[in-house]
Amino acid sequence: MRPRALAFDTFGTVVDWRSSIIRELEDFGRTHGVQQDWAAFADDWRAGYPPAMDRVRRGELPWTKIDGLHRMILVELLDKSGNAAISDEDIDHLNRAWHRLDPWPDSVAGLTRLRTGFTITTLSNGNLSLLTNMAKRAGLPWDCIISAELFRHYKPDPEAYLGCADLLDVAPGELMLVAAHASDLRGAKRAGLMTAYVDRPLEYGAGRRRPSKIEDGEFDIMATDFGDLADQLLGTSA
Amino acid sequence: MRPRALAFDTFGTVVDWRSSIIRELEDFGRTHGVQQDWAAFADDWRAGYPPAMDRVRRGELPWTKIDGLHRMILVELLDKSGNAAISDEDIDHLNRAWHRLDPWPDSVAGLTRLRTGFTITTLSNGNLSLLTNMAKRAGLPWDCIISAELFRHYKPDPEAYLGCADLLDVAPGELMLVAAHASDLRGAKRAGLMTAYVDRPLEYGAGRRRPSKIEDGEFDIMATDFGDLADQLLGTSA
Repeated sequence: MRPRALAFDTFGTVVDWRSSIIRELEDFGRTHGVQQDWAAFADDWRAGYPPAMDRVRRGELPWTKIDGLHRMILVELLDKSGNAAISDEDIDHLNRAWHRLDPWPDSVAGLTRLRTGFTITTLSNGNLSLLTNMAKRAGLPWDCIISAELFRHYKPDPEAYLGCADLLDVAPGELMLVAAHASDLRGAKRAGLMTAYVDRPLEYGAGRRRPSKIEDGEFDIMATDFGDLADQLLGTSA
Repeated sequence: MRPRALAFDTFGTVVDWRSSIIRELEDFGRTHGVQQDWAAFADDWRAGYPPAMDRVRRGELPWTKIDGLHRMILVELLDKSGNAAISDEDIDHLNRAWHRLDPWPDSVAGLTRLRTGFTITTLSNGNLSLLTNMAKRAGLPWDCIISAELFRHYKPDPEAYLGCADLLDVAPGELMLVAAHASDLRGAKRAGLMTAYVDRPLEYGAGRRRPSKIEDGEFDIMATDFGDLADQLLGTSA
């Protein structure tokens, strides 16, 4: 039951979206002389993203890259908070904060180890250019970049997991999804993938952990971080 | 007129398919006790590939990964040369020789320099798993792996070049195709891309250069290898 390839969720699993986005919003606030609860703004921005994907799933919006969904949500939030007079260029720059997310402290070292034993890829709802820019800036050593964009189906639709296995030329059961979110892992499991849960207790901020209600044995691997995942998959080196 | 991203043809441009395939065929011959003109076999294998793509273009075959086209051609050539009794597993291994091609001597160093100034991707008719395995083995430092497979259109169909620009989120005119083949570069130019020709005089073997009949000024850049390309795009460092 050793996988041939590992596919990684990115937002929250590989990168710390929340503190990176708060930092970019604070920079934006300083530049534009705006004071606001930027942590709450970051949470609202992120919270707007599943309903936006659902609008695409229901056919209310055509297929849209996550950059486009992030921008729609951002413009609404800026309007609501009385910041409607920001230039398109400044909105574009702020929106691309999602290309500039910092990895968790163990991500690069863990991926570098895992890459010696497996093909490692992203499998994210983020669009390909976002994931490519993020990897280049953060030094994430992916073997390739696979995005839901390639299948025009966001996770947890089965097309995303099965499409990833097809592109990698492995059977679904030979591919392991690595994610910090039970809903994503459940989607992968329904599609026949192996699953590894990685705990990211700080994703929503210190002391704001969301209980994840995972059944015992629900996923193939439970890991505390990417170092632990590499230990479990590659064996610990003394 | 500086590009934002560079897309590289791979077979012949980045990797020396011919000597790599001959080496693998010779290994195969030794293992199976078969003597043959393996250089001619390699040339026939490669020559079978444009007509096979044309059969897909005409709808005579469904969409097929290059691995599948390579295998069809290989089986025909083995049959023709009286080697029909090879196991499926051995054929699969030999077919995956296209995943194990060696780079030209300047490829890794040139790409490593170019990567500091540009997003660099493959844009090959090779399937994604082939290109990913090749990059991992040869140490090619791509920012991402883009294949004609993602668009279900082989180069030089315009969909491949325009699809690549769309995924990278750049305008066609901001993307430069790098290739050793005029037909590929002409397809890219028709689709609105910038073009860089890189000379690979040994692609078809020493002394077997195919004249390329390029008009003066037809492509934006003419380079002798990836080091020269990096000099021209990044400026020479003293």
